Amino acid sequence: MRDVAIIGASMTKFGKREEWIRELLAQAGKECLTDAGVSPGEVDHLYVSNMASGEFEGMTGVPNSLVHDLGMMPAYTQRVDQTSSSGGAGIYAAWQSIASGTSDMTLLVGGEKMTHRSTSETTDVISSITHPVEYKHGVTLPSFAGLTARLYLDTYDAPRESLAKVAVKNHANGVNNPHAQFQKEVSVETVLESPIVADPLRLYDFCPITDGSAALLFCPLDAAAEWTDTYASIAGIGGATDTHVVHERADPTTMRGVVESGQQAYEMSGYYPEDIDVAELHDMFTILEFLQCEGLGFFEPGQAWEGIEEGVTEMDGSLPVNTSGGLKSKGHPLGASGVAQGYEVYKQLIGDAGKRQVDADVGLACNVGGFGNCVITTIMEAHQ
Amino acid sequence: MRDVAIIGASMTKFGKREEWIRELLAQAGKECLTDAGVSPGEVDHLYVSNMASGEFEGMTGVPNSLVHDLGMMPAYTQRVDQTSSSGGAGIYAAWQSIASGTSDMTLLVGGEKMTHRSTSETTDVISSITHPVEYKHGVTLPSFAGLTARLYLDTYDAPRESLAKVAVKNHANGVNNPHAQFQKEVSVETVLESPIVADPLRLYDFCPITDGSAALLFCPLDAAAEWTDTYASIAGIGGATDTHVVHERADPTTMRGVVESGQQAYEMSGYYPEDIDVAELHDMFTILEFLQCEGLGFFEPGQAWEGIEEGVTEMDGSLPVNTSGGLKSKGHPLGASGVAQGYEVYKQLIGDAGKRQVDADVGLACNVGGFGNCVITTIMEAHQ
Repeated sequence: MRDVAIIGASMTKFGKREEWIRELLAQAGKECLTDAGVSPGEVDHLYVSNMASGEFEGMTGVPNSLVHDLGMMPAYTQRVDQTSSSGGAGIYAAWQSIASGTSDMTLLVGGEKMTHRSTSETTDVISSITHPVEYKHGVTLPSFAGLTARLYLDTYDAPRESLAKVAVKNHANGVNNPHAQFQKEVSVETVLESPIVADPLRLYDFCPITDGSAALLFCPLDAAAEWTDTYASIAGIGGATDTHVVHERADPTTMRGVVESGQQAYEMSGYYPEDIDVAELHDMFTILEFLQCEGLGFFEPGQAWEGIEEGVTEMDGSLPVNTSGGLKSKGHPLGASGVAQGYEVYKQLIGDAGKRQVDADVGLACNVGGFGNCVITTIMEAHQ
Repeated sequence: MRDVAIIGASMTKFGKREEWIRELLAQAGKECLTDAGVSPGEVDHLYVSNMASGEFEGMTGVPNSLVHDLGMMPAYTQRVDQTSSSGGAGIYAAWQSIASGTSDMTLLVGGEKMTHRSTSETTDVISSITHPVEYKHGVTLPSFAGLTARLYLDTYDAPRESLAKVAVKNHANGVNNPHAQFQKEVSVETVLESPIVADPLRLYDFCPITDGSAALLFCPLDAAAEWTDTYASIAGIGGATDTHVVHERADPTTMRGVVESGQQAYEMSGYYPEDIDVAELHDMFTILEFLQCEGLGFFEPGQAWEGIEEGVTEMDGSLPVNTSGGLKSKGHPLGASGVAQGYEVYKQLIGDAGKRQVDADVGLACNVGGFGNCVITTIMEAHQ
């Protein structure tokens, strides 16, 4: 198994974009090659993380379109779909292409174009991520989040405000991210007074609907220094599933996919929770940040809410979480989100995170598909 | 890079099926595990080759559904889409998962459910495989096939009947395949008198619209003997693209994706065209069988038509092509087709192809996405 480096990264502005999916992917892909100083002809494999270009835009075959637009023929290409964790699945696929020795240079581009569709059309597509026995009865991802948040607050006697503070923290971080959809602070009061979506969760507990694209460039670790002086390596990576039917889980506050994928990444890397300096977690709903913090071992079960009350996961805490602003303020273009998590960790590790920069040698990204139905966790290490 | 074995295979009956995509995938997946005597808990990775469950059925997240239905949690899973070559791309992904050392047991299930939609709805989805600059002017995959067939016949002074003989041969082979959509012979006259679709090609020059699923099970080569006495290995594999805009190609009768992916597979395997004993080619249109025969080096450019006239690619010829009946008579459920090609080559190599059995130690499968926009070629070797 070859060790794998990341030598370049890019992302478009996230938000409501006028461009279509092909253009968004091409923008991020081109900028990523420029970032690394690599020409299109050097790329052997191109992976495209995208959940639903066919459903949202009537457009299939986007990888073949992108390979053409970037002038990369005869590079191999393929679309990676793992619902809202398509980006993390793309990192896993790109990593395997280098680790196996198949490709010596792999570009990963993730993207989604969603805002041109109505909320009800978008919800139809996203709802079918969940199992038919559940969504045909009207259960959606937000309602799972509401039920789980209620269970968590009750079980651990946690204050409702602790969830609001996740949104407040991530919005504050997003102010310093020029790519974020919302560069705007919010207060605990704003969150708690926003409209109820799925009790006890309110509008500001949820990420928005977003267009955008992000890209990462991978090569064998022993070749990275030919391209750049500062880069990161993938120290560990893992992917795991939980029951697709959420009501079959013994305890919905424990996300088995998070736990198992985290363990795989820790074991491969030799790094453990106490070694992680910065983390990007999948805060599609505020409650998910707590569940990942606990599933990944940053806090004991039921204690993540105390962590945010104590400021542990703030920018100046001992483990900054979602320095990018997270999905909450950065936005969540489904196929791009996991790649954009990788972008943030990579930028933190190479010391290029601007006003968001923290002191970090080892970083982690956790990308959650569905309601924890499939999760990919990646640990990266700085090389300078 | 670890060597990779295939130790099990299955496929459902192809044709018009009443089951939905989830059920078709589960059928093939379950049968494949049974075929190999492997329990669901042994599987580390599950790849699902599927192009458009969202567009055809409003169903996303099928890998998470399948991992659940097969009882495989916490196995990792992901959907692989490479349009009509999604199955071949799935073989490439599954192979990388074992070759890289990430997974010790990988199940690949490919499937598509299409026949419940109208021909015009299906055509809308498939047409968007091609580049917008072409399909917005009304050019579709069948019209590319017609134009290329005309060019081929004119350039090489080949008789129209030679194309019809591809359909006749593959239908004759399909008679002996209980999984084929059509188990019915056709004559040259039937083909030549069928309705024109894209001149000079007629209805019987095209594969049908099909539902179905197929599966393959992969493990490290050095572990294969623990499971079975007869198995195959992946001796070589490659994937490559051509221009997404077909009219930019210097010579549409040369498919660069076929040539490049074939060269990669030949070089990795150390086998060359003369070593191939049996081949499954992507005969979505009859002309494609000629172009692949030539691109893969079985015949010189412009000579494949003579090969079929001389019977070289018949069951009793020196290189039987599409013993399964090919896409032409077996059917073409997009995500399943490449996996079903692998099924046929595997069955031939382990001597389990029933009435279709030929003498074969080395086999090749070539799966074509779009109009050669991306192609995956796999070479397998028998171990007994």
